[in-house]
Amino acid sequence: MSRVVNGSPKVSEKTKQKVLAVMREMEYTPNVFARGLGLDSMKTVGIMCPDISDDYMARAVSGLEKRLHKYGYDCILGCSGYEQEEKESYTRLLLSKRIDTLVMVGSTYAGSGKNPEQTDYIREAAEKTPVFLINGYVEGKNIYCTCADDFQAAYEVTSSLIKRGKKRILFLYNSNSFSARQKMAGYEAALSDAGYPISGELKFYTKNEIHYVRDILLEYRNLKFDGVVATDDGLAIGVLKYAKVKGISIPDELSVTGYNDSDFAVCCEPELTSVDSKLGTLCKITIDNMLALLEQKEVIEQKTYVPCEIIKRCTTDF
Amino acid sequence: MSRVVNGSPKVSEKTKQKVLAVMREMEYTPNVFARGLGLDSMKTVGIMCPDISDDYMARAVSGLEKRLHKYGYDCILGCSGYEQEEKESYTRLLLSKRIDTLVMVGSTYAGSGKNPEQTDYIREAAEKTPVFLINGYVEGKNIYCTCADDFQAAYEVTSSLIKRGKKRILFLYNSNSFSARQKMAGYEAALSDAGYPISGELKFYTKNEIHYVRDILLEYRNLKFDGVVATDDGLAIGVLKYAKVKGISIPDELSVTGYNDSDFAVCCEPELTSVDSKLGTLCKITIDNMLALLEQKEVIEQKTYVPCEIIKRCTTDF
Repeated sequence: MSRVVNGSPKVSEKTKQKVLAVMREMEYTPNVFARGLGLDSMKTVGIMCPDISDDYMARAVSGLEKRLHKYGYDCILGCSGYEQEEKESYTRLLLSKRIDTLVMVGSTYAGSGKNPEQTDYIREAAEKTPVFLINGYVEGKNIYCTCADDFQAAYEVTSSLIKRGKKRILFLYNSNSFSARQKMAGYEAALSDAGYPISGELKFYTKNEIHYVRDILLEYRNLKFDGVVATDDGLAIGVLKYAKVKGISIPDELSVTGYNDSDFAVCCEPELTSVDSKLGTLCKITIDNMLALLEQKEVIEQKTYVPCEIIKRCTTDF
Repeated sequence: MSRVVNGSPKVSEKTKQKVLAVMREMEYTPNVFARGLGLDSMKTVGIMCPDISDDYMARAVSGLEKRLHKYGYDCILGCSGYEQEEKESYTRLLLSKRIDTLVMVGSTYAGSGKNPEQTDYIREAAEKTPVFLINGYVEGKNIYCTCADDFQAAYEVTSSLIKRGKKRILFLYNSNSFSARQKMAGYEAALSDAGYPISGELKFYTKNEIHYVRDILLEYRNLKFDGVVATDDGLAIGVLKYAKVKGISIPDELSVTGYNDSDFAVCCEPELTSVDSKLGTLCKITIDNMLALLEQKEVIEQKTYVPCEIIKRCTTDF
């Protein structure tokens, strides 16, 4: 391994030896060393997301980093992927660094809702450092969650489609994350409130890949639908591609709503009605809460919900 | 400021006092401390990009982080924006951290080509730590650059349009970055080699925003063109939106090529012919070079060019 001795200040050999001895005594690792000494804040935040090449997560990290930089904090970035084991090992890794708090971006960290043990690693992490979740909810001490009100937004888009006479509304999703579950619950509640049946067939799980969505819908020839509530813009654009192949007119014969109001929503044709899930606001609240906790030790909310906004474009007639 | 004492190991008061005394003696800051002691590599890399919410940069950081993680390195992320002053101050900030090397993503760091002093801060940084540029070239000791061969790719798409009979090819760009200048030079060389004039009017500078591009092209009513070479997929999609409003058929009346082969290229309609600028390969080479330099002290190339690949879709007939 290389020795980085750039910018080395003048330190006497004696001083060096003294410090190295103490380090050995403490079984030195940088964070243990600093924390063990009760040093002030390291002014460093660990940011974890499954995949920074995902548009939503990239925008979240951008919003977080900008605000943290403004307040003099550094960001250590870790991209964990979606697997349970990787999420756990990445969390342990970031905790072993000199971080003041850990921010987890994306509702995958809140588990699939099937097994509460899936989120034990977050509660364990929170015993060591405050944990902030963006768009996921995990209950526990020292865990602070800021979420978009996805239930309400999915309820509203589904209700709007029903009001426009749509009878068979497909719910298109690609994960069982916390956020996806809120959206599904909102979709189901809107159907129930309108006296519509909830059909298992119309809850359609797929990969989040435009051509894959197009092709799988083409394969399911007997699946009839006149509306689509998608949990992501990419899924919704797959539906537009499907409609183009089939010669289905949008929004008259088929209305489609996306989610996250990404740049993709204005790339496609027709341009996509989408839910603005207020990511910028989630990031701002998260950092404000973090600073309140770290610097002024205020008591902060453990759970904050932010309302979404429906951005109407050309794939719906509401 | 808060005191982070989580996970504190058992350290005697005497030990604490000894270390704190040494730290005071050294005018402690973490990196100076560690480096001054001639400690081994910090296993931390500073990654700087202007804007992580940009698709290209997000993919780059994703590729870099994955590979660095595999080799046990941490990433400190800094998003500097595009202004000269910000780039310089962010570079100074990252250098003051415990980093082994600095990676700069995006050709904006290589300056606008007008004033060599714009890149002095990179040469100064390279006196302290090795600097790796992704898709930008800056000459200097301890600076290592990996670039897509944008000249050749722009030359090829322009030549292909000429071969298909296009007479007035618009070069659409949104920056004077190193990469944009290579693309423009390739475009001009292809025109020259075909005996076409190089027209200032056909080199069209715009903002990178889909609806802005559409609207500005609609305003320039007297500007005639039958081909477009865009330096980014977003710009090219703006052209598709313009063509839709004008009822221009693509690719017959107007052929369009984008750049970076982003997800946007398959969102739009018709789907976009684009240049795959081999970002994954650039990231891999950068990290491999970095490891060779840091860990084995091999002599590595200061300048590596990677050929691009043209991905043919529906907006061209080549």
